[in-house]
Amino acid sequence: MKWDEIDQQVCSVARALSVVGERWTLLIIRDAFRGTRRFDDFQRNLGVTRHRLAERLNRLVEDGVLTKVPYNQKPLRHEYRLTRKGLALYPILQSLSYWGDQWCDDGAGPPLHYWHARCGKRADPVISCSECGDPLKPEELSTRQGEVLSAYTRSLRETGETIPADAALPLAAAEFNAHYKNTSEETNS
Amino acid sequence: MKWDEIDQQVCSVARALSVVGERWTLLIIRDAFRGTRRFDDFQRNLGVTRHRLAERLNRLVEDGVLTKVPYNQKPLRHEYRLTRKGLALYPILQSLSYWGDQWCDDGAGPPLHYWHARCGKRADPVISCSECGDPLKPEELSTRQGEVLSAYTRSLRETGETIPADAALPLAAAEFNAHYKNTSEETNS
Repeated sequence: MKWDEIDQQVCSVARALSVVGERWTLLIIRDAFRGTRRFDDFQRNLGVTRHRLAERLNRLVEDGVLTKVPYNQKPLRHEYRLTRKGLALYPILQSLSYWGDQWCDDGAGPPLHYWHARCGKRADPVISCSECGDPLKPEELSTRQGEVLSAYTRSLRETGETIPADAALPLAAAEFNAHYKNTSEETNS
Repeated sequence: MKWDEIDQQVCSVARALSVVGERWTLLIIRDAFRGTRRFDDFQRNLGVTRHRLAERLNRLVEDGVLTKVPYNQKPLRHEYRLTRKGLALYPILQSLSYWGDQWCDDGAGPPLHYWHARCGKRADPVISCSECGDPLKPEELSTRQGEVLSAYTRSLRETGETIPADAALPLAAAEFNAHYKNTSEETNS
């Protein structure tokens, strides 16, 4: 499998990484959250080549994470702004930042401290359950297959085939998923 | 700036990405969380080339995210296990997975549903404040500079130099940080 094909995995981590998993992309998003909007400013802040930056920005626009908005008419000039889909990436940056604070601070302490306006205290991000509000610990989470994956494993079971292990499932299901989608499109038409 | 130098930014997002920001790396970590431990299993699950996989695994071992543990003595064979530093990456995967569920599901619904054993309900991950437990919204968060960054801006202010914008600060501070570290090492010795 090539990197360009990872969005075909029936796995939300793989699909998310197919949009933001390239070098530089999440640093561009970080800067966008800090208010950077213009090509030259991204370039100066990041020090990435103009060619690479243009490629990454175009891809983020194609994927609906950034949108191009004109800020000057003559000559026509655009800036890049986060869409709702882009703004929804904030928890990913928070998690990366917190992990960097904890494990990559080189002993010098975190570069930035975060304060929560609501409670007035210095705050760390904790992943909590949307239902009960308690911290979500990996060992207290179980998964159940969504429709796409369960249709796939059901079909394997019916034909007596081996069901792939958890880690291999997303990849194996991709092929089935393509078939499943074609079938349901045929049914709909 | 080259990608290999981004860990020099005084920014925890950049430093975290210098460890996990390469293509494939977070997919390797995802599989490790699902129980994959052996080279051949990673290779089969991911479909990445053996050369690329070996490079990524070695790097993760160097960075202390994975550790090599012998599972066979004759011939000597190792498997890869997540360290505490590696296990601490879980919130990053949760955030990526949730964003993928919300924005990259292709209309077919999430591949996996998560259930929280503590409350028995289907749970989404929400980033909450470690102090008050309320959801942490970007607009309710403010930042204060940690010691490294504030020493840098103080020194700029004293010499009357321009203080870089927020987005440029991590990069500009890197150079100062190197100096600052050398100075404090000299003081300590």
